[in-house]
Amino acid sequence: MLPRLAVTMGDPAGVGPELCLRLLSEASIAAACTPVIFGDAGVLRRVGEMTGLPLAAPVMAAADWDRRWQTLDQPAVLDFQAIEAAQVVPGQVSAATGAAAFLYIDRAIDAALAEQVAAVTTAPISKEALHAAGHPYPGHTEIFAARTSAARSCMMQYSDQITCSFVTTHLGYRDVPQHLTSERILDVIELTAAALAKLRGRPPRLVVCGLNPHAGEHGLFGDREEERIIVPAIEAARRQGITIEGPLPADTAFVPEKRQTTDAYICMYHDQGHIPVKALAFDSAVNTTLGLSIVRTSVDHGTAADIAWQGLANPGSLFAAVRLALRLTQP
Amino acid sequence: MLPRLAVTMGDPAGVGPELCLRLLSEASIAAACTPVIFGDAGVLRRVGEMTGLPLAAPVMAAADWDRRWQTLDQPAVLDFQAIEAAQVVPGQVSAATGAAAFLYIDRAIDAALAEQVAAVTTAPISKEALHAAGHPYPGHTEIFAARTSAARSCMMQYSDQITCSFVTTHLGYRDVPQHLTSERILDVIELTAAALAKLRGRPPRLVVCGLNPHAGEHGLFGDREEERIIVPAIEAARRQGITIEGPLPADTAFVPEKRQTTDAYICMYHDQGHIPVKALAFDSAVNTTLGLSIVRTSVDHGTAADIAWQGLANPGSLFAAVRLALRLTQP
Repeated sequence: MLPRLAVTMGDPAGVGPELCLRLLSEASIAAACTPVIFGDAGVLRRVGEMTGLPLAAPVMAAADWDRRWQTLDQPAVLDFQAIEAAQVVPGQVSAATGAAAFLYIDRAIDAALAEQVAAVTTAPISKEALHAAGHPYPGHTEIFAARTSAARSCMMQYSDQITCSFVTTHLGYRDVPQHLTSERILDVIELTAAALAKLRGRPPRLVVCGLNPHAGEHGLFGDREEERIIVPAIEAARRQGITIEGPLPADTAFVPEKRQTTDAYICMYHDQGHIPVKALAFDSAVNTTLGLSIVRTSVDHGTAADIAWQGLANPGSLFAAVRLALRLTQP
Repeated sequence: MLPRLAVTMGDPAGVGPELCLRLLSEASIAAACTPVIFGDAGVLRRVGEMTGLPLAAPVMAAADWDRRWQTLDQPAVLDFQAIEAAQVVPGQVSAATGAAAFLYIDRAIDAALAEQVAAVTTAPISKEALHAAGHPYPGHTEIFAARTSAARSCMMQYSDQITCSFVTTHLGYRDVPQHLTSERILDVIELTAAALAKLRGRPPRLVVCGLNPHAGEHGLFGDREEERIIVPAIEAARRQGITIEGPLPADTAFVPEKRQTTDAYICMYHDQGHIPVKALAFDSAVNTTLGLSIVRTSVDHGTAADIAWQGLANPGSLFAAVRLALRLTQP
């Protein structure tokens, strides 16, 4: 039997439902795994009617999951009936859509922890909706880290062009420096080295970015965060045998020639890595959380309120996220 | 007669000298303007011997400039004899190389202010060498702003793929927020709109990036710098009739589809714009300073100590810088 994957539908008012409809119809996905959409069948049907995309999979009531999950051998929808489809306005997230989106994630994590699914792949959620629903997480990454009691974890964006891991993510710009420690940077280096070794089948080559312009240029800019905080982490990683370079100026780190010889970048803050990943690999990048007891991947884009329920959203990132999850679950 | 351009040789120990040798031999440049290298002939000759690049232009003593500049009608070298060529170690910048590099810039600005040259294009310098020589400027931009008593100025990186202007540049990461004001952002918007109107021949479309991840996501991250500081500048620009959008999340601002409809981005800090420019247009981007009484462009790379004096440096950015200077000097 193929591995079962939980795919959460994301915020019902976003592009998640139509991406799930496309996933359920994708032969190359069904040939590699059995995706189960953790979502609402009513929303999927209504989005299907509006976009012309068929709901090409059987629907199972959430209550039947425990007794039927083991026999699932084709793509399916697990129906939580968390929200009335008629109540959802395309592109308008709310406390109700946020509550539904959170429920799908929560139950998918349950299924993964119970080893009923091999991994979880997530469609986009709205943090505002999540907060409105009383779930004060900055994003998926933090929900998964909390629910799986991960001792350490980090976000990684993976693509064929460029891969970045993050020391900090959803923090205000000015809050970043106080969150940088050598221990945290070393954690992210170790998690990234292990993941890339698995994906590449060989010891990876890592690059660490500096925090300041020109990586501080030997103390000309900034408070020597490079020398004080980043360099000790790099030296500790080298002592473990990790092939790693840096801290490099973030702007020259991502030039084409350097990308060719770099398996992954360790980035100090959200936009340092998200800018080049989205500029270079917008439709194919995948988000994943390293360090969890379960495998979790995600699309690398938001709910795209402006085009939701129109059938225009590119499913490339969701398909890539499912494929990466499969690679990460292999022994 | 073709316009005369001053081209400073940059730090003698960097790749500037070999780039200048290539410029002097480039027929397409000589067909469009008369470049005059403000540098040291001895260094150029020695670099020429080591790289096999000929010094294909006459040499004029700096002392002869005032009486001969008007008759110059072919590419030439203005020889300041600021440093002994035999003293320079390739790739090793020092107080001596910094002092020489500063002298070339200082004299080129004199020539531009006296309208003896139409513009100045600069080869790369080392800030450390500049500081060692007692010139405490963070970069070219600030030297030009100080020497021309510019009331306001900003750095812009220009390329065919992407163009970015900067509200702040050579500041430590943590010093950026305190330097952001609505007035400064509006200055950069106005300078950029004027420059792009000239280069495009039509009103340009501008995008302003937020400071925080997701442009703060309506206050979830950061201190509402977007609402407090950036939005008022955008609204003021709109009242002037400038076509402008933002603040956009910096990561999605640079995706391919958005780049196609954006003439220039207004960036809050150095790496926010330098990362995508160098990732997308490494060999062709040009640096320019807007708001000066003189036109100034520059290569968009450093002294490249690791490959200096080997003839390996790509002259694409210097050629593009000269061509952009010519376009900006046209009425």
